[in-house]
Amino acid sequence: MKSQSSTFDKPIDVLISEVGMRDGLQSIASVMPTASKFKWIDALVEAGVREIEVTSFVPAHLMPQLADAAEVVKYAIAKPGLSVISLVPNLKGAQAAIAAGTHKLTIPTSASVAHSLANVRKTREQMLEEVRRIVEYKNAVAPHVEIEAGVSVAFGCTLQGVVPEDDVIWMVEQCIAAGANVSGMADTTGMANPAQVKRLFTRAIAAVGIERLGAAHMHNTRGLGIANCLAAYDVGIRGFDTSMAGLGGCPHAPGASGNVVTEDLAFMFEAMGVRTGIDLEKLIAARQPMIDGLPGEAVYGMLAPAGLTKGFTYAK
Amino acid sequence: MKSQSSTFDKPIDVLISEVGMRDGLQSIASVMPTASKFKWIDALVEAGVREIEVTSFVPAHLMPQLADAAEVVKYAIAKPGLSVISLVPNLKGAQAAIAAGTHKLTIPTSASVAHSLANVRKTREQMLEEVRRIVEYKNAVAPHVEIEAGVSVAFGCTLQGVVPEDDVIWMVEQCIAAGANVSGMADTTGMANPAQVKRLFTRAIAAVGIERLGAAHMHNTRGLGIANCLAAYDVGIRGFDTSMAGLGGCPHAPGASGNVVTEDLAFMFEAMGVRTGIDLEKLIAARQPMIDGLPGEAVYGMLAPAGLTKGFTYAK
Repeated sequence: MKSQSSTFDKPIDVLISEVGMRDGLQSIASVMPTASKFKWIDALVEAGVREIEVTSFVPAHLMPQLADAAEVVKYAIAKPGLSVISLVPNLKGAQAAIAAGTHKLTIPTSASVAHSLANVRKTREQMLEEVRRIVEYKNAVAPHVEIEAGVSVAFGCTLQGVVPEDDVIWMVEQCIAAGANVSGMADTTGMANPAQVKRLFTRAIAAVGIERLGAAHMHNTRGLGIANCLAAYDVGIRGFDTSMAGLGGCPHAPGASGNVVTEDLAFMFEAMGVRTGIDLEKLIAARQPMIDGLPGEAVYGMLAPAGLTKGFTYAK
Repeated sequence: MKSQSSTFDKPIDVLISEVGMRDGLQSIASVMPTASKFKWIDALVEAGVREIEVTSFVPAHLMPQLADAAEVVKYAIAKPGLSVISLVPNLKGAQAAIAAGTHKLTIPTSASVAHSLANVRKTREQMLEEVRRIVEYKNAVAPHVEIEAGVSVAFGCTLQGVVPEDDVIWMVEQCIAAGANVSGMADTTGMANPAQVKRLFTRAIAAVGIERLGAAHMHNTRGLGIANCLAAYDVGIRGFDTSMAGLGGCPHAPGASGNVVTEDLAFMFEAMGVRTGIDLEKLIAARQPMIDGLPGEAVYGMLAPAGLTKGFTYAK
């Protein structure tokens, strides 16, 4: 939770990490122009968003939406105090992300064998080996870079169905044992419920310690995204991955899997008296450069059309 | 929580009360044909919904959507075991609702002076006097009928802004003192947050006792409806007002005020292991008669397009 700059000088209670630029953009067909990404980053920083997952380092032919990965990282790291994250599926991606200057790497591992093979074409054990290789590399060339190894489909898998909780906790432990600074659990497919979220995060905290757990990464596929974040908060989690305007999700399509909406979650916390460091009106305004860069793309979120409540006061 | 019939013979942990036929229909311009309302009631009962707020007894020229109030009540009370609620703003409405055979009356009072005058053209004290008159009447003619006096805008008011919590608790106490069987608190304008929900329901339970508190009535105006229900559940509330397909809300219009989506909330509870008595697939199917009766009307909810999760099991 960096707060070196004047933009980020207020103390915060929770860290909202914007992942729309990666998780959102990779899920839609439209390609946002690089110049629009820059304007979007400007607006997010202006609103007080302290951490952005800006891209994924994957082959451009596989994901043309993120072909400008290095350029976007270089632009973002010039923002004083902003924490800049890149997703990397392998050592090659990590090398490129570190060369571009990213502050933090996120490596996707999986709690489900079926999903692991489908997502990264590796078994869970092979993926843990990849984490070890990346940790070794970054320790040699950029020891200040943080590594999060997240556990995907931790709350259910569209291929495997139910994922045993022991498997999830085992993966979290293995990620930390492989040298990741933090691990995390992601509801990649929007199958989590609040009771399960409380159970799994409580177990994960007991297993590796709260300081070793990254953000709760919840999707809103079945409408429970915000309730699941509340459940995670209730058991001690203080970091949340969210996506502006729920980018990437489509509530009218089967399998829709949009992230929790940044604006709505930030509103919930501020209304509850939990400090996010975010100016909600500026955050709503930050939707515009995103919308301008993705003409015709569906946008979601309830706070933006409804506006702040009459008499609203920020957390103090 | 009636369960006399074979449809409703399973034990439940929470009572989900469908209010779309009243709160939803009164909020939209379209008028649902009476025959469609009957089919919708059939489908809701078939899905295991045990309580429906079917109408409001108000002058037909003020609310033509609900002009068939008596007819709808008569149809609904023929369903064995179904609990049938009517909203009544005054004694005249209560007389008509009781004559039609309704099981339960809901009377809207208000925590905010400004809202009370705007909504029912009475001060809070005058509205409490109306509650006393209705209680006296029903005790004389239909003592078995239950009376809930709900407190509207308990979590904030679009006219007054912040509503002092002492005012809300005072109104809950006054409603019970006026002879209502239960009182309740409604987030009429979608301004609540989970911390406030926990605080106010905890105070209300302490003030009048859990057996004197009706359903949590939450709106999803700013995306927090389900999280607010979870918060109410966490402090002991076991009844929830919801609206199929979020009827009546429009996330793309300022001031949108749709209820919590029945399907999504029922899914959350069942996934958590909390029994609702509802068959979720039949509940999703029950959207169709509603949609057929309101051609072109916007429908919401995330569960219906996404479907149940792979490997889903109901609460046992």
